[in-house]
Amino acid sequence: MKRTLGVCYYPEHWPEDQWATDAAQMVATGLSWVRIGEFAWARMEPSPGTFTWDWLDRAISVLGEAGLKIILGTPTATPPRWMVDKYPDMLAVDAQGQPRKFGSRRHYDFSHLGYREECRRIAGLMGERYGSNPHIAAWQIDNEYDCHDTTLSYSDAARKGFQDWLAQKYQSTDALNRAWGNVFWSMDYDTFDQIDLPNLTVTEPNHPHQLAFRRYSSDQVVAFNKVQVDELRKHTDAPLIHNYMGRITGFDHWKVAADLDIASWDSYPIGFLSDRLEGTPEFKRAFLRQGHPDNQAFHHDLYRAVGKGRMWVMEQQPGPVNWAPYNPAPLLGMARLWAWEAFAHGAETVCYFRWRQAPFAQEQMHAGLLRPDSAPAPALAEARQVADEIETLASVGTAKAQAALVFDYESAWGWDAQPQGADFEMFRLAFAAYRALRRAGLNIDILPPDTADLSAYKLVMAPGIMSLSAPLRAALARFEGIALIGPRSDTKTDELSIPTPLGPHLPGVDMRVALTESMPPDDGIPLEGGGQFLHWFEHLEGSAETFVATAAGQPAIMGGKNLRYLAGWPDDRTFDQFVAGLCDALGLETKQLPEGLRLRDTETHRFYFNYAAVPLTWEGVTIPPAGVHWEDLR
Amino acid sequence: MKRTLGVCYYPEHWPEDQWATDAAQMVATGLSWVRIGEFAWARMEPSPGTFTWDWLDRAISVLGEAGLKIILGTPTATPPRWMVDKYPDMLAVDAQGQPRKFGSRRHYDFSHLGYREECRRIAGLMGERYGSNPHIAAWQIDNEYDCHDTTLSYSDAARKGFQDWLAQKYQSTDALNRAWGNVFWSMDYDTFDQIDLPNLTVTEPNHPHQLAFRRYSSDQVVAFNKVQVDELRKHTDAPLIHNYMGRITGFDHWKVAADLDIASWDSYPIGFLSDRLEGTPEFKRAFLRQGHPDNQAFHHDLYRAVGKGRMWVMEQQPGPVNWAPYNPAPLLGMARLWAWEAFAHGAETVCYFRWRQAPFAQEQMHAGLLRPDSAPAPALAEARQVADEIETLASVGTAKAQAALVFDYESAWGWDAQPQGADFEMFRLAFAAYRALRRAGLNIDILPPDTADLSAYKLVMAPGIMSLSAPLRAALARFEGIALIGPRSDTKTDELSIPTPLGPHLPGVDMRVALTESMPPDDGIPLEGGGQFLHWFEHLEGSAETFVATAAGQPAIMGGKNLRYLAGWPDDRTFDQFVAGLCDALGLETKQLPEGLRLRDTETHRFYFNYAAVPLTWEGVTIPPAGVHWEDLR
Amino acid sequence: MKRTLGVCYYPEHWPEDQWATDAAQMVATGLSWVRIGEFAWARMEPSPGTFTWDWLDRAISVLGEAGLKIILGTPTATPPRWMVDKYPDMLAVDAQGQPRKFGSRRHYDFSHLGYREECRRIAGLMGERYGSNPHIAAWQIDNEYDCHDTTLSYSDAARKGFQDWLAQKYQSTDALNRAWGNVFWSMDYDTFDQIDLPNLTVTEPNHPHQLAFRRYSSDQVVAFNKVQVDELRKHTDAPLIHNYMGRITGFDHWKVAADLDIASWDSYPIGFLSDRLEGTPEFKRAFLRQGHPDNQAFHHDLYRAVGKGRMWVMEQQPGPVNWAPYNPAPLLGMARLWAWEAFAHGAETVCYFRWRQAPFAQEQMHAGLLRPDSAPAPALAEARQVADEIETLASVGTAKAQAALVFDYESAWGWDAQPQGADFEMFRLAFAAYRALRRAGLNIDILPPDTADLSAYKLVMAPGIMSLSAPLRAALARFEGIALIGPRSDTKTDELSIPTPLGPHLPGVDMRVALTESMPPDDGIPLEGGGQFLHWFEHLEGSAETFVATAAGQPAIMGGKNLRYLAGWPDDRTFDQFVAGLCDALGLETKQLPEGLRLRDTETHRFYFNYAAVPLTWEGVTIPPAGVHWEDLR
Repeated sequence: MKRTLGVCYYPEHWPEDQWATDAAQMVATGLSWVRIGEFAWARMEPSPGTFTWDWLDRAISVLGEAGLKIILGTPTATPPRWMVDKYPDMLAVDAQGQPRKFGSRRHYDFSHLGYREECRRIAGLMGERYGSNPHIAAWQIDNEYDCHDTTLSYSDAARKGFQDWLAQKYQSTDALNRAWGNVFWSMDYDTFDQIDLPNLTVTEPNHPHQLAFRRYSSDQVVAFNKVQVDELRKHTDAPLIHNYMGRITGFDHWKVAADLDIASWDSYPIGFLSDRLEGTPEFKRAFLRQGHPDNQAFHHDLYRAVGKGRMWVMEQQPGPVNWAPYNPAPLLGMARLWAWEAFAHGAETVCYFRWRQAPFAQEQMHAGLLRPDSAPAPALAEARQVADEIETLASVGTAKAQAALVFDYESAWGWDAQPQGADFEMFRLAFAAYRALRRAGLNIDILPPDTADLSAYKLVMAPGIMSLSAPLRAALARFEGIALIGPRSDTKTDELSIPTPLGPHLPGVDMRVALTESMPPDDGIPLEGGGQFLHWFEHLEGSAETFVATAAGQPAIMGGKNLRYLAGWPDDRTFDQFVAGLCDALGLETKQLPEGLRLRDTETHRFYFNYAAVPLTWEGVTIPPAGVHWEDLR
Repeated sequence: MKRTLGVCYYPEHWPEDQWATDAAQMVATGLSWVRIGEFAWARMEPSPGTFTWDWLDRAISVLGEAGLKIILGTPTATPPRWMVDKYPDMLAVDAQGQPRKFGSRRHYDFSHLGYREECRRIAGLMGERYGSNPHIAAWQIDNEYDCHDTTLSYSDAARKGFQDWLAQKYQSTDALNRAWGNVFWSMDYDTFDQIDLPNLTVTEPNHPHQLAFRRYSSDQVVAFNKVQVDELRKHTDAPLIHNYMGRITGFDHWKVAADLDIASWDSYPIGFLSDRLEGTPEFKRAFLRQGHPDNQAFHHDLYRAVGKGRMWVMEQQPGPVNWAPYNPAPLLGMARLWAWEAFAHGAETVCYFRWRQAPFAQEQMHAGLLRPDSAPAPALAEARQVADEIETLASVGTAKAQAALVFDYESAWGWDAQPQGADFEMFRLAFAAYRALRRAGLNIDILPPDTADLSAYKLVMAPGIMSLSAPLRAALARFEGIALIGPRSDTKTDELSIPTPLGPHLPGVDMRVALTESMPPDDGIPLEGGGQFLHWFEHLEGSAETFVATAAGQPAIMGGKNLRYLAGWPDDRTFDQFVAGLCDALGLETKQLPEGLRLRDTETHRFYFNYAAVPLTWEGVTIPPAGVHWEDLR
Repeated sequence: MKRTLGVCYYPEHWPEDQWATDAAQMVATGLSWVRIGEFAWARMEPSPGTFTWDWLDRAISVLGEAGLKIILGTPTATPPRWMVDKYPDMLAVDAQGQPRKFGSRRHYDFSHLGYREECRRIAGLMGERYGSNPHIAAWQIDNEYDCHDTTLSYSDAARKGFQDWLAQKYQSTDALNRAWGNVFWSMDYDTFDQIDLPNLTVTEPNHPHQLAFRRYSSDQVVAFNKVQVDELRKHTDAPLIHNYMGRITGFDHWKVAADLDIASWDSYPIGFLSDRLEGTPEFKRAFLRQGHPDNQAFHHDLYRAVGKGRMWVMEQQPGPVNWAPYNPAPLLGMARLWAWEAFAHGAETVCYFRWRQAPFAQEQMHAGLLRPDSAPAPALAEARQVADEIETLASVGTAKAQAALVFDYESAWGWDAQPQGADFEMFRLAFAAYRALRRAGLNIDILPPDTADLSAYKLVMAPGIMSLSAPLRAALARFEGIALIGPRSDTKTDELSIPTPLGPHLPGVDMRVALTESMPPDDGIPLEGGGQFLHWFEHLEGSAETFVATAAGQPAIMGGKNLRYLAGWPDDRTFDQFVAGLCDALGLETKQLPEGLRLRDTETHRFYFNYAAVPLTWEGVTIPPAGVHWEDLR
């Protein structure tokens, strides 16, 4: 499959006489796709029931006739002001009990059924009008679910919805009280309408109470999305897409994606490094203008799986953004590198955000491919270069992986409720495991928690999985490679309590966690022969074999030939040693790549990406800063 | 008196057929006491007026017949959900005006008279039913007052109660306006119902307004407790106990304790080091798995005084807890060391919290003596060892002290209202003084602010006492040892204003504080001959003798033969020098103990406690990490 | 003009029989002025319509007859408690939606028209009674506008006022929607009453929405002040004054001051260093007891301009204060140095705050010239010394300046709304430029943004000016010295959007900002030949000359002979180099003063101020710590 480029465009921001010029220049730049419409509700329906589709008709026509394929967004992330007059209680409520008001975006509560119905209506109307339009080649539903922490709302609508959801799930408060252990502090309920949302409690609310609210809230995102899917499917066969974000675990992406055709995500490497990724000051300085060398790959691999094989980058950072604490410009070449890295990880399409920098409103300092004065911004030439390279580079084929990582959103919620150590967070742990695999030069697949077949892989990691699902447990029982489970895996029930007998329950392995401890970041558990665990350490017992021990002689990795349990959170160097050891045992080749160099194989090519700000030489090839190098594997 | 051990147990958490086995194993472990009931209201009275005492009857019977003495808790820290339906305004309100909702514990407002009446009712019913039960050997009222900052509430109930309290105290708003200096910013009131709670003001509310609210709020804790005391006294002669916490100054423990028989406290050495004690990173790392080497001793000594000589540890940490930022496991041996240290400081009983780790709810990651699967946790064997040692070690007698420290809760509130320096806090200052005395190897008594007789002591310290009480001033006037008053002592009136003539008013000493300054942590005041003051420095004047001067020649310690004033907050090394100097003048022997070693004399024995993670040798004896060593003094 | 000293006094705080003694001692100390009345509303009008002027009559009489000139304050910063009963909605509301309650000061909403009317009433009554009193030589209106962040309120009154203000300004929502770019996220409004205040939005509200609210709020301060001005003018010809604060940009001081006669400010050098000025720990330690060596000068120069040439210090720190995080005592001599520095910068009068330390209420730990026991505090002798020196030192003449700095409050609001980098703040940038000019030994004038004539200056700096005003642009076009504009200047429209063509639009200079980036504090942009930009860097393009380049060859300073643009935020050393280079080109003499030494020329004298804690020698003269040295320039 040939990769394609695209761009995000807002015809409503520009004079109509500029549209054709813009479209022509997009095509001249080598772009195939243009995304429009996702924030334009107020311009589609300026007052309730009054529609002004004509400008959108014309914009679609101009763009489409220029040769661009259009991704049309439903505008439900930005309901117009009149909607709030109609449904004053549609606003979400923050954890302090304050309404989250109109005046920016995402000002709606997923639990509000009136607003949900409005979204069904507008999606239906758009489907009806544009579903068979030949220029509309894909649809985007809403925009960046959970951005600005919008999954959780502490509103009346959410409370009532939650109570119904609990009644449906547990059928009786007795069952709920038992499941949650409400006897603990006389927290028993007599009726479902006594159950409040888990905010503003005197001290932390019961963990299963929190987990249930997270599950409920995620289910509302799924339902909200599905309403629009169902409407659009009536009118179109084009693929339906949502654009996810980076490091967002607020809802279960696996479940939302089950109703969609393609998973896309919005990749802001420099913004994310600044505002949401861990790293030492030295590390952050070294990658200031390039972004974290593993973060994009992680999310490409995650969303490729979420998208059941189909993944796009819907928004690609082209220059400085406006929303991170600091917003430096990318190193020249990065706008090309990021696109090729996405392709190497299976992206079908990469759309830059946005065509022309808006001179007004909240994102006026967010770069585009053009400046506000329509002069080319630096990324325009890089996009052009990528478009040219796509022409000369044959299809790079489908990605294959030898290693896999299981990633579970419900576990993330469990650990949010019950971190036990202040720095224990699901994404951070999973990303640490991913980074170790990637530093070893492996191709990695990310798998959902109900994966039923692991036979394609030699090495599987499953860190922080609250409780193994039945299909995954069965797949592990049959697994012939090595699966490294843990730390903190399969030690909880589905209700976030401790099972008896104690977990983990790895098929055929006599082993359990006898005691758990968390440590401050500077207090590691030294391992025999070097290395250490940080943050987390589980005391294991059982008759299974100890493969690695701590300096004090406790098991650090324990288990059987195929299924092993990792008792702690290794630091990066230690994780590298463990991965190297396992690969060695499995006959998997690993590499010791220089700091900043990363590689990814496709079916046909090996790609090297130099994330460093200096040239790097590897096996005789020197790759410039921000450089991409590929070798034909055939 | 022979020391005893006990454990906290929740029969309502376990199948009834497990109770007898548990009881037998407790007895086999050498435990004498079992505490039950304090969170079980919903299981005693599942709906208003419907009682299910039968399970509790049986639990008491099973435990008692196994040979255990029972401490029965009133369950008022966890009112059932129906109570909140009955009194929706019984919830406390936080400083931001939000209700502190049901869903965890301590969800009640001390000012709510309706709830207070409910507590009287349940305490009365329990007293009636179990007051003469031979197995009930003690009672605990409520649980951990002020835990989760629950003394202060900004509710309507608190506002009305506060207004009444003010009217009672001041009789007229004119008197109140004068006492508070309300003329200052036109803050005068015309009626008591104009006086709001001191939250959400534009800038800081008037200090005496804050202090009055702290006094009022503390009085509500006293009254809340007394209601239950009065009910229980009608039915039982068993001792009444409350379990206080560590580093809690939110209410006046001296006053609550006046109505009780024994002061107990909940000792979590590792949790407290992590979440509420100052210390350099190196210090915290050195004592990560042992806890602060002085914190337990301080609270033992404090609560021994609060309990008028009778002190227990009602909850003793046995392993990792769940609620601190980080929760490592104790060094092996600490569960024994902590118990012996408590005994050496006069504890009659030490109860481990809890028997079996709960597999569910908020504290499921909190260790017990048993694991959730009923296997022994590491502390079980240590408890057994302590029980054995109690058998072989003769009574260790009553503690005696040469040194005393005055500790005043009202002053803590005063300095909270008026810290003047960002790091000035009463507990921190008093603990610094205590630590210096203890590092010198002294036995220490802690004294209430109205102490009228100091003749038992040679050295008395009184740091941060807002204003000396009349009895204490009189006792100081008669004192023949050396009392080191200050810093920041006796420089305020009872209404937190500055007296004229300026304080302190030490009998027979011509001296006053002319000017006060606070300094950032890195800006010390160097002293003549080395050492420094940190945080705080008072410029003293008067004709009294200067015993120590600053490098600039200002008085650092000034006064007379017996009464001296300390002008600043010495750093630890300087405090050690001062204590050594005073002891030398008094003929008191001091020691220079190695880092981590502490000692405590009883009437019959000298105990050494090695808090270090390495063996320490002292006067020819080597004590292992977490080791306890004792010598017979007879 | 002979300089004068004064003091702030609160007769209502002291027994009436003490007034005459106090007044005599003030006169004996050499003080000419006494400020009274500004917090005494409750004592003037204890209940609505009941007046007790008699005590104030007598106080004025006693003070005036002792020979003191009186500044009489209107008491509107502290409305009595009954006012809040009358207008419960007069309280401001914080950004979280909570009322900012009675119990301290400044508890009013500038938007509340009922309270504004009450202020008109009390000012009118005071004017009527005291307007022609011969002892009343000046008036102060209210006290410290915006102290405790009181300009912004999120109340109903503010919302309604804001909507009216918007309707008046934009006339139609269409115009507003276009001006704000509301199309961006479907943020269009249909009616003005749909427009809410810009708090509690899901993510950041639209920047022009924020800016409009800042403009509206500042206008309310202007209007609030003018109401009192208009009343007082009916009754008096004495000068009207407000006392501004340090580092306050919450309202447009230029506009408030347009209605007043003198700008005064409240100078707390040590408090401000502790609580609101940037500085390394080493720097803060070096100036702990002296204050920032440039902060007082900056504000003197700012308020001299704000006061159209007439500037006072209404409150001068005399010793430790109570409100900063840490409150050390000033180095002996600073109370004199600060006064002389104020005089050298043009202050007519310096009033110490306060006469006697209050023993009660919020500021009881705030030093005065007397202690609470009426003994002299250290500053009393220093005030006496200044008074003596005034007698011997002939008039020091009017200040002249070769350099000027443009300072714009609206730009400060713009950058608050749109910082783009976490540490970008207007005051900080302007102060950095000011400090560089001052370190070079220059006299500096601060200019309003609509300055129309620059001909008096050789060097002008205009950093961070959102968009140049028409008069200033015209003045720059005629300017014959060198103006260094930028960074971040003239790159926005008046509505905080990006102009096309891109700015800046410097007359006769072909140059624009092509791309902007912000950087974390440790990531500088190195310059050719040394030095660096921090925080901020703009990529410039155009045919204008590059005067300084970055190490990578991009323009760092670009422009023409007279108008140049600074592309980034230089660190201090680099700023010094730039100023030295420009002065060299202009033939302006600069100095390399030792750390802590500062100088200021008047018409007749050169003053040296030693802010260091050690003696400094300069051109053969040794100045002691906290020393002032002057040379006659004639």
